[in-house]
Amino acid sequence: MTTSTTFLGLGAMGSALATAAIAGGRPTVVWNRTAHRAEALAGRGATVAATVAEAIAGDGVIVVCLFDHESVHGVLDPVAAGLPGRTVINLTTTTPNESRDFATWAAERGVTLLDGAIMAVPEMIGSPGSAILYSGSPTAFAQHRALRDLWGTSSFLGTDAGMASLHDMAMLAGMYTMFAGFLHGAAMVGAAGVPAAEFAQRQAPFLAAMVGQLAGLAATIDAKDYTGDGQQSLRFTETALATLLRATDEQGVDPVVLEPVHDVVRRQIAAGHGEDGTARIFEELRSTR
Amino acid sequence: MTTSTTFLGLGAMGSALATAAIAGGRPTVVWNRTAHRAEALAGRGATVAATVAEAIAGDGVIVVCLFDHESVHGVLDPVAAGLPGRTVINLTTTTPNESRDFATWAAERGVTLLDGAIMAVPEMIGSPGSAILYSGSPTAFAQHRALRDLWGTSSFLGTDAGMASLHDMAMLAGMYTMFAGFLHGAAMVGAAGVPAAEFAQRQAPFLAAMVGQLAGLAATIDAKDYTGDGQQSLRFTETALATLLRATDEQGVDPVVLEPVHDVVRRQIAAGHGEDGTARIFEELRSTR
Repeated sequence: MTTSTTFLGLGAMGSALATAAIAGGRPTVVWNRTAHRAEALAGRGATVAATVAEAIAGDGVIVVCLFDHESVHGVLDPVAAGLPGRTVINLTTTTPNESRDFATWAAERGVTLLDGAIMAVPEMIGSPGSAILYSGSPTAFAQHRALRDLWGTSSFLGTDAGMASLHDMAMLAGMYTMFAGFLHGAAMVGAAGVPAAEFAQRQAPFLAAMVGQLAGLAATIDAKDYTGDGQQSLRFTETALATLLRATDEQGVDPVVLEPVHDVVRRQIAAGHGEDGTARIFEELRSTR
Repeated sequence: MTTSTTFLGLGAMGSALATAAIAGGRPTVVWNRTAHRAEALAGRGATVAATVAEAIAGDGVIVVCLFDHESVHGVLDPVAAGLPGRTVINLTTTTPNESRDFATWAAERGVTLLDGAIMAVPEMIGSPGSAILYSGSPTAFAQHRALRDLWGTSSFLGTDAGMASLHDMAMLAGMYTMFAGFLHGAAMVGAAGVPAAEFAQRQAPFLAAMVGQLAGLAATIDAKDYTGDGQQSLRFTETALATLLRATDEQGVDPVVLEPVHDVVRRQIAAGHGEDGTARIFEELRSTR
């Protein structure tokens, strides 16, 4: 009997992962709560399982990509008796603590867990630009390299199963705020009749260049010294943000995504740090626990 | 008599602009409210003027880079009698309406105005990565190409003097929200002991890749059709942001910069657009005037 790779969950991402496995020549068993998504993969050569129990009947690795932490338990709890000795790669988006909870659950049932977080959209799966973070079992990480390599570029972040999710979440914070800020800017120029596409052509290279500033902000944070030369001061940033909020008002745009950035800068200035560098926003946001 | 270029305002940016002019072999006259900043430029060959009137006594172009709109008037209003027939390049950060007000002021006094906005930090002035936007007088833009080229890559955005400032402000919205989102993420991983520099090494290439998504968001906005295939739905984004906010709470990080992004997504879903693409955030932010 050939060992198959099992895929539980065939949303856009799960389907992309299974498609890459099939394209890589691996016998593939797929299951999804609603059947129609499985049909497309059947056409590509996947075996469609009618139930989760049937899908995990073999001895291969089980790749889980479901809606959320709760749905992972909803799908795996009923078949837990069939899991001892098996390896699960959980690529469902969860919080770090949810990943750790699941790692405990897995350990208690003799399941080897590799928790993963995909830093890519489904269309990118299989390309070098698709970065996937893993944490949990280093053995499972090493053992399933061939499968991982079909999906993208892998990094292993340690045995704490929560680390992949933590980095995923932390990086998405930057992405979603950047998207929101871009849409804010598009709304500003849009009020003057400038098409969003024209604005994106200017904004994209500028933001790509400004990404180059992150290493400097990070070095300042790690040094815990916000007073160094060459840093844009909080007072300068406050003036820029105040001007930006006046311009936002002039254009009739909702300031909701920008105002809190101005607020945290003002809080740090009120605390006496106006001449410090702007990286000090970190101190306003970070855990005080 | 050789025509000199006059620089009013020698903050970090004004000094960088004047330094580039001196390095380009131009006779340069500089003035600053406090004298010590001018001394450094005197050492490089600039003529230091004791007063604004003295600084503008010649017939060359006047480059203004002051603290804000108010300080531009504070410096130029007293010497307005000496300005008819002159060209002013105003690189002070202002709102679009402030730029337009100043254009009116200039026109009433027979002054040719080129309004500029610098999309770079002072250290970048003179390098190809330094992008400077201009609007206002096309004649002044054409005439001072040699000077502009000493500072960076120029774009002319039209005769409406407010357009350079508007694009400046709109692009800075993306930059400041991205920086805030990065610092939020750094605070999340920092709570687990991960150095900010290590996080920046992962975050920077990821954000640079995600900048590639902006053109797609823009195309959706311009098409006014948020229902297309391949778009990440608002409902998917809401779930991701809710998970991200739970993870933020787990790490003890202040959610202040991320919560409003979640809020605008939820408002659009409440308005019945959950299955539409995430670019619809634009509709929540844009002017309804």
